[in-house]
Amino acid sequence: MNNEEFRSYAHQVVDWMADYLENIRDYPVLPDIQPGALVDRLPAAAPEQGERMDEILKDFERSIVPALTHWNHPRFLAYFAISGSHPGILGEMLSGVLNVNGMLWKSCPALTELEQVTLSWLRQWMGLGPEFFGIIYDTASIATMHAIAAAREMADPEARTRGNSGHLTMYTSEHSHSSIEKGGITLGIGQDNVRKIPVDGAFRMQAGVLREMMTADRHAGKKPFCVVATVGTTSTSSIDPVPAIAAIAEEFGAWLHIDAAYGGAAAVVPELRYILDGAERAQSLVVNPHKWLFTPIDLSAFYTTRPDILRRAFSLVPEYLKTAEDPRALNYMDYGVQLGRRFRALKLWFVMRHYGHEGIAEMIRSHITYAQKLAGLIRSDPDFEVAAPTPFSLVCFRYRGSDEDNKALLDKINASGRAFLSHTVLNGRHALRLAIGNFATTWEDIEEVWELIKQSARNAP
Amino acid sequence: MNNEEFRSYAHQVVDWMADYLENIRDYPVLPDIQPGALVDRLPAAAPEQGERMDEILKDFERSIVPALTHWNHPRFLAYFAISGSHPGILGEMLSGVLNVNGMLWKSCPALTELEQVTLSWLRQWMGLGPEFFGIIYDTASIATMHAIAAAREMADPEARTRGNSGHLTMYTSEHSHSSIEKGGITLGIGQDNVRKIPVDGAFRMQAGVLREMMTADRHAGKKPFCVVATVGTTSTSSIDPVPAIAAIAEEFGAWLHIDAAYGGAAAVVPELRYILDGAERAQSLVVNPHKWLFTPIDLSAFYTTRPDILRRAFSLVPEYLKTAEDPRALNYMDYGVQLGRRFRALKLWFVMRHYGHEGIAEMIRSHITYAQKLAGLIRSDPDFEVAAPTPFSLVCFRYRGSDEDNKALLDKINASGRAFLSHTVLNGRHALRLAIGNFATTWEDIEEVWELIKQSARNAP
Repeated sequence: MNNEEFRSYAHQVVDWMADYLENIRDYPVLPDIQPGALVDRLPAAAPEQGERMDEILKDFERSIVPALTHWNHPRFLAYFAISGSHPGILGEMLSGVLNVNGMLWKSCPALTELEQVTLSWLRQWMGLGPEFFGIIYDTASIATMHAIAAAREMADPEARTRGNSGHLTMYTSEHSHSSIEKGGITLGIGQDNVRKIPVDGAFRMQAGVLREMMTADRHAGKKPFCVVATVGTTSTSSIDPVPAIAAIAEEFGAWLHIDAAYGGAAAVVPELRYILDGAERAQSLVVNPHKWLFTPIDLSAFYTTRPDILRRAFSLVPEYLKTAEDPRALNYMDYGVQLGRRFRALKLWFVMRHYGHEGIAEMIRSHITYAQKLAGLIRSDPDFEVAAPTPFSLVCFRYRGSDEDNKALLDKINASGRAFLSHTVLNGRHALRLAIGNFATTWEDIEEVWELIKQSARNAP
Repeated sequence: MNNEEFRSYAHQVVDWMADYLENIRDYPVLPDIQPGALVDRLPAAAPEQGERMDEILKDFERSIVPALTHWNHPRFLAYFAISGSHPGILGEMLSGVLNVNGMLWKSCPALTELEQVTLSWLRQWMGLGPEFFGIIYDTASIATMHAIAAAREMADPEARTRGNSGHLTMYTSEHSHSSIEKGGITLGIGQDNVRKIPVDGAFRMQAGVLREMMTADRHAGKKPFCVVATVGTTSTSSIDPVPAIAAIAEEFGAWLHIDAAYGGAAAVVPELRYILDGAERAQSLVVNPHKWLFTPIDLSAFYTTRPDILRRAFSLVPEYLKTAEDPRALNYMDYGVQLGRRFRALKLWFVMRHYGHEGIAEMIRSHITYAQKLAGLIRSDPDFEVAAPTPFSLVCFRYRGSDEDNKALLDKINASGRAFLSHTVLNGRHALRLAIGNFATTWEDIEEVWELIKQSARNAP
């Protein structure tokens, strides 16, 4: 393929992309496909001779598209919807062609400096001070792993050379994301040393119990080194009491990390900035623009007030990557595991500029309004109950029936192809999760799904 | 922006992309820019009101492009060139619009199954057996970290729950990539427990010394748990003696990981498949299609014969992600830290199909031929010397002068904007690195750079 053929194919692909977004409501949200069907359909070996691109694109439509779960669908309401947007996609297209790697400032100054600029912009939108240094990782799981590693570096600087000392303990709520426990496992802290603090009736970490457990551990000769609080948990979007937790972390000299991967986006809305109250006392925080800031996957924004410690934990510069020292030339590879760093800031820059602060805030506000309106409809229906508070755009609810009824209801809704919801278990009972995050989702979509839910429940076997 | 406006902007962006690739030789490879210049140029805060996309695209051209290091430039010969290609870019465009997340089979069956298919295809091209299970990570640094974590799980299954025991030791050559040592640091093994084995005259790990060090550690009560051999080191592209290393690793019951991030691509060429001799005895191997297989960043292919151990090390499934068990529905999130997983296999599928096995092999062959021809020219020039063997497409060489002369030479070449080379230090002496990997690089490009090198050396101050 030469450049002119590429131009022609790329225009063809763009028309497919625009048609796809235009007709997205015509696709079933979840594909009707059995595991292994695509593997069975595709050749067992790659071709020896090259193939024409138009044939490959036809196969993409014929084989790949019918096996897609359509995260773009406005009625994709499972997990936390990954929400792309038009300017974000344009940014991905340009990143794809530029194909730069921002391991060092020198390896792509534009990437490094636009990352600094966009993360400073986002920090301001969330009401965080300039003491927060920003870096983009791929996912919140990786960001959180780096936070815990920095916490270890602060608590036990010898761990870097000698390995873990074995007496470190970390704390998070029983409702926090699995990535926190996985971070503890990966870093060699050990699952047994990840304490799960019970939650209150609104699924928030009980700060009093946190203090008790940290005290008990200290008395037992352990070193409490890290506390992870969540603003917007995955099951229910509950908000841990960050100010109280921050005070306890300070008392013990532990690193406080805020997992605001989903909820942090809401702090961009001026009247909701309070959800990050106390975060100014944290050593680090993560928010995922690919979750609720209209930026295509992947882009996780990590902030820390202690970049010096993060750098001490991870910097390791081999000779072939040594560059002249310049205080303004930031080498992001010094702040993490990964050397390969895509040009992720570009899509965020496009999104932030195209919508502006007001445009983004308005979209987030409308998602929260839809969620609250839906929670109201659910509350007023005798067959259903709301299963958790709705501080953001996630609604947890139950059909007033058995767990099996709720499971069957979810399967029925998802099998319809008209919506995709997920589930969780709250206080031992099965509940449905409906999370709004797509820029194209309208109130009519939510109403349609509510009708579908009611209908599916009433016609249940 | 609505879908029709998106269509129009996306066509405009495609024309820019095609023009960019067409005119890539007109750009200076390295930008003439001071650190901080872009930060200073861009607004200190994001706009409150949204802006028009055409204004933003103009700013992209005005502000971002002049600050880019052009990895696409055929005379970008630093590090290991990240080599995109036309079909790879088309794949990135579609991934950008689909915006799916392959954490679970259900969250996108097409992503999961195409990942299985493409990694099986690539495995066959490299001559690895079906016992190698494939998974895509973002980077080789992350892949290698997972390999070391799986090695820990095999050696000390209690580490997952109790944390590291403190007596594990791992082994790699003094020429191996920094990510291996960084993996040991991150996982809490400790830098002191990462043994660096000296290399021979051709920069290959000395297997005899490896056995001595492992034996000494075992006698001292340590547990040698992981050996990392490299096929294509970063400094010189040297190849460790994998069969001998594999025998030693087996003797000690240690996990053997092969870092073939760069060099592994060459195994796709049938007559070069021998470079992976012994790899069939390894527990894991990483190769980066984003390095030398014409796939845009990021895409790192990881293979392991022990997916059961990898899964045991990382699986942690919260309630909200539990799905029905089906042996054919692979949930890739169980095999690593990251939950967020972009649709990376799509671009690899496009690249493998469009070029075919023969097309890819031919491009890699030509890069190696250029490197060998260049090494020949260098050898025949009395002012220069080749500084290391050239098994792949990387040429290490020196100007016969002082280290300062070589540094000045490199700076002069890079300041010209006509080429970008990097450096390393071999046996204490400064050397230049010239790595060929771009699909658009021609022999004329290499000849032009050789003339530039000679001219720069001769006109040196």
